[in-house]
Amino acid sequence: MEKVKTGISGLDEMLNGGIPAGNQVFLCGGPGTGKSTLAMEYLYRGAKAGEKGLFFSLEEDPEQITRIFSTVFSEWKDLKALIDSGQITIAGQESYVHLEKGVGAGTGTTQAYTFSRLTGSIIGLVSDNKVKRVVIDSSNIIKMFFDSDLVFRRTMLGLLRQLKKIGCTTLITGEIHSLGREGFTFEAEHFLADGLIMLYNIQQQEKRLSAIEVLKMRSTAHSRSLTPLKITSSGISVYVGEKVY
Amino acid sequence: MEKVKTGISGLDEMLNGGIPAGNQVFLCGGPGTGKSTLAMEYLYRGAKAGEKGLFFSLEEDPEQITRIFSTVFSEWKDLKALIDSGQITIAGQESYVHLEKGVGAGTGTTQAYTFSRLTGSIIGLVSDNKVKRVVIDSSNIIKMFFDSDLVFRRTMLGLLRQLKKIGCTTLITGEIHSLGREGFTFEAEHFLADGLIMLYNIQQQEKRLSAIEVLKMRSTAHSRSLTPLKITSSGISVYVGEKVY
Amino acid sequence: MEKVKTGISGLDEMLNGGIPAGNQVFLCGGPGTGKSTLAMEYLYRGAKAGEKGLFFSLEEDPEQITRIFSTVFSEWKDLKALIDSGQITIAGQESYVHLEKGVGAGTGTTQAYTFSRLTGSIIGLVSDNKVKRVVIDSSNIIKMFFDSDLVFRRTMLGLLRQLKKIGCTTLITGEIHSLGREGFTFEAEHFLADGLIMLYNIQQQEKRLSAIEVLKMRSTAHSRSLTPLKITSSGISVYVGEKVY
Amino acid sequence: MEKVKTGISGLDEMLNGGIPAGNQVFLCGGPGTGKSTLAMEYLYRGAKAGEKGLFFSLEEDPEQITRIFSTVFSEWKDLKALIDSGQITIAGQESYVHLEKGVGAGTGTTQAYTFSRLTGSIIGLVSDNKVKRVVIDSSNIIKMFFDSDLVFRRTMLGLLRQLKKIGCTTLITGEIHSLGREGFTFEAEHFLADGLIMLYNIQQQEKRLSAIEVLKMRSTAHSRSLTPLKITSSGISVYVGEKVY
Amino acid sequence: MEKVKTGISGLDEMLNGGIPAGNQVFLCGGPGTGKSTLAMEYLYRGAKAGEKGLFFSLEEDPEQITRIFSTVFSEWKDLKALIDSGQITIAGQESYVHLEKGVGAGTGTTQAYTFSRLTGSIIGLVSDNKVKRVVIDSSNIIKMFFDSDLVFRRTMLGLLRQLKKIGCTTLITGEIHSLGREGFTFEAEHFLADGLIMLYNIQQQEKRLSAIEVLKMRSTAHSRSLTPLKITSSGISVYVGEKVY
Amino acid sequence: MEKVKTGISGLDEMLNGGIPAGNQVFLCGGPGTGKSTLAMEYLYRGAKAGEKGLFFSLEEDPEQITRIFSTVFSEWKDLKALIDSGQITIAGQESYVHLEKGVGAGTGTTQAYTFSRLTGSIIGLVSDNKVKRVVIDSSNIIKMFFDSDLVFRRTMLGLLRQLKKIGCTTLITGEIHSLGREGFTFEAEHFLADGLIMLYNIQQQEKRLSAIEVLKMRSTAHSRSLTPLKITSSGISVYVGEKVY
Repeated sequence: MEKVKTGISGLDEMLNGGIPAGNQVFLCGGPGTGKSTLAMEYLYRGAKAGEKGLFFSLEEDPEQITRIFSTVFSEWKDLKALIDSGQITIAGQESYVHLEKGVGAGTGTTQAYTFSRLTGSIIGLVSDNKVKRVVIDSSNIIKMFFDSDLVFRRTMLGLLRQLKKIGCTTLITGEIHSLGREGFTFEAEHFLADGLIMLYNIQQQEKRLSAIEVLKMRSTAHSRSLTPLKITSSGISVYVGEKVY
Repeated sequence: MEKVKTGISGLDEMLNGGIPAGNQVFLCGGPGTGKSTLAMEYLYRGAKAGEKGLFFSLEEDPEQITRIFSTVFSEWKDLKALIDSGQITIAGQESYVHLEKGVGAGTGTTQAYTFSRLTGSIIGLVSDNKVKRVVIDSSNIIKMFFDSDLVFRRTMLGLLRQLKKIGCTTLITGEIHSLGREGFTFEAEHFLADGLIMLYNIQQQEKRLSAIEVLKMRSTAHSRSLTPLKITSSGISVYVGEKVY
Repeated sequence: MEKVKTGISGLDEMLNGGIPAGNQVFLCGGPGTGKSTLAMEYLYRGAKAGEKGLFFSLEEDPEQITRIFSTVFSEWKDLKALIDSGQITIAGQESYVHLEKGVGAGTGTTQAYTFSRLTGSIIGLVSDNKVKRVVIDSSNIIKMFFDSDLVFRRTMLGLLRQLKKIGCTTLITGEIHSLGREGFTFEAEHFLADGLIMLYNIQQQEKRLSAIEVLKMRSTAHSRSLTPLKITSSGISVYVGEKVY
Repeated sequence: MEKVKTGISGLDEMLNGGIPAGNQVFLCGGPGTGKSTLAMEYLYRGAKAGEKGLFFSLEEDPEQITRIFSTVFSEWKDLKALIDSGQITIAGQESYVHLEKGVGAGTGTTQAYTFSRLTGSIIGLVSDNKVKRVVIDSSNIIKMFFDSDLVFRRTMLGLLRQLKKIGCTTLITGEIHSLGREGFTFEAEHFLADGLIMLYNIQQQEKRLSAIEVLKMRSTAHSRSLTPLKITSSGISVYVGEKVY
Repeated sequence: MEKVKTGISGLDEMLNGGIPAGNQVFLCGGPGTGKSTLAMEYLYRGAKAGEKGLFFSLEEDPEQITRIFSTVFSEWKDLKALIDSGQITIAGQESYVHLEKGVGAGTGTTQAYTFSRLTGSIIGLVSDNKVKRVVIDSSNIIKMFFDSDLVFRRTMLGLLRQLKKIGCTTLITGEIHSLGREGFTFEAEHFLADGLIMLYNIQQQEKRLSAIEVLKMRSTAHSRSLTPLKITSSGISVYVGEKVY
Repeated sequence: MEKVKTGISGLDEMLNGGIPAGNQVFLCGGPGTGKSTLAMEYLYRGAKAGEKGLFFSLEEDPEQITRIFSTVFSEWKDLKALIDSGQITIAGQESYVHLEKGVGAGTGTTQAYTFSRLTGSIIGLVSDNKVKRVVIDSSNIIKMFFDSDLVFRRTMLGLLRQLKKIGCTTLITGEIHSLGREGFTFEAEHFLADGLIMLYNIQQQEKRLSAIEVLKMRSTAHSRSLTPLKITSSGISVYVGEKVY
């Protein structure tokens, strides 16, 4: 089975070589655990290896995203060039305009409409740009445009299946309601994905430690260990074989 | 009472010879605990012993399923042949088309319709192929097509009773909201089944350990011990008599 | 006060001689804790002592029930004869047909109708067969035929009062959402009964231990100890005076 | 302030002489904790001291209640005589007929009607019999006749205020969803009462220990200790000053 | 900033001199923790210092309240005189009549009406009697008159703002669903207040210990320690600097 | 990336220089944890450094706010002057009038109207006064004006995006339902913000300790340590490098 290398130090080792091509993966964690950051590095490493990526944000507009990640990863001197040359497409602003219309009006019909435009936008951007790696940041904002959890989940199921059909390997970020590993329960949408990677900020008296864990990844063996993680200005490092506590 | 050997190393010993014929069994666990994998091995071992099986997936299309399990179980050189010769029927794609129609439209009537076609599909595939072993993967996706939990449970009750009437021994996978044994509570649909087998990923500081436990199995004595489990490229091994911790 | 001996080794001792005649008792536990099994032995011991019983199942049809318990209790060579001679009436299939009609249609009226037929069926079977001991297996399936918990509870209250009026001593099984004694909370329907007997599978590291506890029994003193229980092919044994842990 | 002696050994000591006259007290506990039993002894001791009582049951009919308590308290040779002579009025059957009418019909109007008849019945019985001590057993069954918790609580508030106005000192039993002291949370109706007495079955490994605790009692000082309790055939004993554990 | 001395021994020390004038304070605790008692002493001490008070009860009528507190605080020989002379106004009965009308009728309009009359009553009583200190006992009963939590909170917000505007310093009692400090979660209405004082009955094996804690008090520094409290016939004592455990 | 210095001793060090300009930050904690206080100091320090601020309160009117903070921070002799000279604009009373109209009327339309006026007010005040730092105190009161959580969150999302567009750096206070770090779960609105700063009152037997923690801050590295905090009459001090316990 073909693997898509995340290019993130240590993570591919945990995944036995990378994410199986065509997998749709949820990347979950509490606020500030580094979900968007890891997702962007996945695209950056892909772009440097010649694989086009799409960062579809429902949280920020494209210029802001470029600015944020240029700051966070100050050593990635070529990030902006990769974006400018279209190796990484950053979208959000335009789709958000359509979404905004649905707010307030808020009937089921309007929502279906705006969301189908969003799905269409994503699929269109992928085809137009020959994108192989997709990031959707975040599922929580999408959820906010649905009055019914059930309709949200069915729509996510449809979107994930379309992305799989056109061959994308996707990371969807999802913010969860707790920070550590205790007391966490899955949301029904997590069951839809081919993979589930968790990011934690584990409370350790005065400190919080960052860690990553692969709970599920279809079509491959993978590490089942909680593994420490660090974010620096040159990217994320996953310390395979080291202990968190 | 006639027993259906799962053929999975150690599991039949836990079940005192196998699953009583005609039992409808829930196979539950958190994401990545190996539910689909165990379910497929149940069919594979049956097919090799001359008993036809049906893998009815609501998560993947048939080619994808064949590809995934050929990868996971790289030592099963004959899996594809068993599928090609019809010893194992893999279905999903076709029924999913009908289901898709129900999405969005979303009235109770449409849902009943599409789901009755699904039930009809499963029953039809079973009769046409003289199937004895059925896997339905997963109950969570089916649940997503119902607006009401109550209607879902009643429909599941009807499907399980029809499968029993035509003599199938069935594994239905169900993804649950926690990974370990702590804090788990049953869903009402679990009460409908003749058996309940749990798969766990038990958190052990840095690691997660795989384990299996038979909580309920009508018409037979069975092990009541939590038992370690390993998934390798040649199949699942259940280590009866060994300790998890 | 007249007592109905359960005939189950040790349980009558816990109940200070048996269940007070006319008591309607909930028998609760998680999946696989032995509720139906204990309920059937209650009828079997009664039948052998000349008291007629009714096993009203909403889970299986009569032949299946006969087959299951002949297997579980392989030493009860006379069970089938007691059933054939009408000492134990096993019902289910016929009532389930009426119930099935209510499914899908699902209006309050239809449900009331089908359920009143069910109540009528039970009361009719009891009078026709001069039944003294009744088992209803299980309350969860009945609950599934009601859209409203409130209507379910009121209907249960009516059924229990009718059974009491015609002098039956009844066990109603109820599956609960946890296996052990921790974290258990009562359902409102449990408050309707004259007695409440709990069956547990207590998690003990690698093993689960079976135990019984009488939480409530109107009109009699009773044991308040958690007591170990074993199910063998010759019946259930309750080990009064022994420790579970 | 005038006190109504419960006459129960030890309890009056905990209450600094008894229940302040006119207090409406909730007597709460899990199934089988002895609520109805304590409530009956309260009436029995009152009747022997010349104070008339009413036991208003929504759970049993009067003959059954007489029979149960004659069995439980086998040493109370004069209980039946006190009932026959009208010192203790036992009611239930007649009011339950009116209530039954409301079931099924189930409109707000009908419920209000049947319940106002119930309230009327209680108030009527109290005036006709010059009753001073009232027991209502149990609030849970009353709750079952209301579709809305809010309407139930408002109606309870009205009933309690009427009973107070005509000078009754009342015990209302309420079954709660846990057995011990851990994890207990109050229901909103408990806030309506002048007093709150808890009965517990505290889990102690293999055993359950009975205990009583006065959480609230308006217009008097009272014990704040958890106190052991025993039920024998001659009545309830509360062991003030002894330890439960 | 001007302070209103509660006059309760130790509490003013915890509050760094008293409650800042114009603050609207929630006084919360489980049943029997002494909320009404503390609130009454706040008025009694104020009245003795020449500041008029209003005790607005939704739980008892005025005579009953006078009687209860004359009993509880048997050493306050002058309490009745202070009430009779109008230093402390006790209200309840009259407003409760209006409220009663809203019960049963139960439309939003009627409720708004009766509640606006209640608000009007309180504001009227305050102006007519030149009241400075207000007690509302309790918020739970008020909550019971609203079908919607949201409307209740908005109405409370309005009432609190009006009381602040006319210069009152208010204690509103609120009964919470647990007794100790563990597992407590705030209700949204608690966020509306300028202060939050908690009363606890802390479970200590066989005993319950009384304690007080100031969680929030706008416009002043205050103690953050859990402090023991005792209620005697001469009033409440808060033991600043002593330990609870 | 440009940073906005909070000016609060120690906090800027935790934030690696300050809040990234344009970030919209939630400042959360239980009652009495110092949210409004920290928010006001953020404006005060900004104003002294020449950056205009807006304190938009839904809890108090402007004069009251000025009075409260002049009391709390008695050493800030120039606070009133900064407010009078318009360096800090305090608003609330006027907008609250519009909001009040929506209460009671309570239709979706009215709410949308009043809230859009509120949003308009804030945006207007910001432009008119060339404000750079905004405080909204508190999100809980805003939430109370919405019947639907979903509409509240969508509206907050819109407000946050508008504030970002016009270049403000904002602190929105949010009161949460627990005081310590245990058992805390995020609300969906917390996911909308660029940053999340928590204030705690950690229960330590008899005492509560104040502490601060930065859980999330987009576009900057930041401390992940729980850090002690003290509020004195000269402002807040965050003790970077010290331990809480």
